[in-house]
Amino acid sequence: MDVMRETTAAYIGIGDELLAGKTPDTNFLYLAQALRDLGIRLLRAVVVPDDLDAIREALDLLRHRVTYVFTSGGLGPTHDDVTVEGVARALGVRVIRDPILEKKLREHFGQSLDHSSLKMASVPEGAALHFCDRLLIPVLSIRNVYLFPGIPELFRRKLDSIKERFRTAPFCTEEILCERFESEIADILLEALERFPTLKIGSYPKLDPEGYSVKILLESRDRAVVAQAADYLRKAIA
Amino acid sequence: MDVMRETTAAYIGIGDELLAGKTPDTNFLYLAQALRDLGIRLLRAVVVPDDLDAIREALDLLRHRVTYVFTSGGLGPTHDDVTVEGVARALGVRVIRDPILEKKLREHFGQSLDHSSLKMASVPEGAALHFCDRLLIPVLSIRNVYLFPGIPELFRRKLDSIKERFRTAPFCTEEILCERFESEIADILLEALERFPTLKIGSYPKLDPEGYSVKILLESRDRAVVAQAADYLRKAIA
Repeated sequence: MDVMRETTAAYIGIGDELLAGKTPDTNFLYLAQALRDLGIRLLRAVVVPDDLDAIREALDLLRHRVTYVFTSGGLGPTHDDVTVEGVARALGVRVIRDPILEKKLREHFGQSLDHSSLKMASVPEGAALHFCDRLLIPVLSIRNVYLFPGIPELFRRKLDSIKERFRTAPFCTEEILCERFESEIADILLEALERFPTLKIGSYPKLDPEGYSVKILLESRDRAVVAQAADYLRKAIA
Repeated sequence: MDVMRETTAAYIGIGDELLAGKTPDTNFLYLAQALRDLGIRLLRAVVVPDDLDAIREALDLLRHRVTYVFTSGGLGPTHDDVTVEGVARALGVRVIRDPILEKKLREHFGQSLDHSSLKMASVPEGAALHFCDRLLIPVLSIRNVYLFPGIPELFRRKLDSIKERFRTAPFCTEEILCERFESEIADILLEALERFPTLKIGSYPKLDPEGYSVKILLESRDRAVVAQAADYLRKAIA
């Protein structure tokens, strides 16, 4: 059987003001609650200053270990907004000016577009743009890294707009320890999957059959489905 | 002149509940504000689950890079309170039962002292105990790592009780760029130090004397002292 991989995440809050205690990091709590609702396990949170090396270090440490990395902050037009550059360096890509974003900015600002505002069109090369909630500036993502603004209202609007794409099976699970061998129960497991279309089943055979041979993990967004499937399987396997 | 070394810190919040969004990490903000008031620069904050390896990893990453590490959480009597063990492993020491703490616990709990409560007497070998604010359990520290409880009220009471020991020159600074050579102004700087006893002066000569030769950094807990000293020095050096 396929092994179920848990969907995981890390948070990187970026901003001197967070570490100086000037601004509470409300985005961390908002994200943590949203991820829990989405069924995603947040494994680490890190807060770093507005510093290229610190951002790169945090990404180096975290991005290979989780399904998604969410960053907050450092996306504005001023000199201390260095998140795009930090992410690009961590991923080994250049920072380029995105033509779609540049066009949107020119349309929006017209003659008043200055060099600082144009910085908002800079993206790590290869980034995807996720336009949302009628906002001018999209969420950027590259590989598994999603860049969110630090301003809490924008963070929330943007996260709320795109979060459903991250939804995964929530932490509604049940475990069955089975004394039969995996090969003997494979058909039963397949039947269960047909009977309960929203069910996921993980089957983990143990080398030493003492106590039990296979651990079966049931998972679904629907608690009732997990309970019914567990009943069904316990009877079918017995 | 002596180079001023900035006093720095890192925060490690420990607890599954923080990452699950069940509990806001108010201790981080409280510590960040306290450190700023104390003149200590918080360089990193990390939130990790109740997991030995995660705690050790965070300490390995941070403790050599900052003056102080402050941990929050994981100090209770239950199985998922693993901070003492995690800190001990990171520092390569054993966990021992501290006789002073054990005595205090036995006096306090009497016959009702059980195995779980006795766990509160476990400390990393070599830890210092900082009793404070009439609380039964002291703050533990070992080398530059200070262990605080996660319960916000206790965190605050304990931090408030011992924080003055960490106080250092705050971020009240002024910079003077000087075109004379360091050797020419050394006596003037010494005079300023005598005149303003709470003043710190850092003097940073530059190899290339283009623009200026020495950068002078003035620092004091007292903003007025910095302003007066800057006035004095600008006139004396001119």
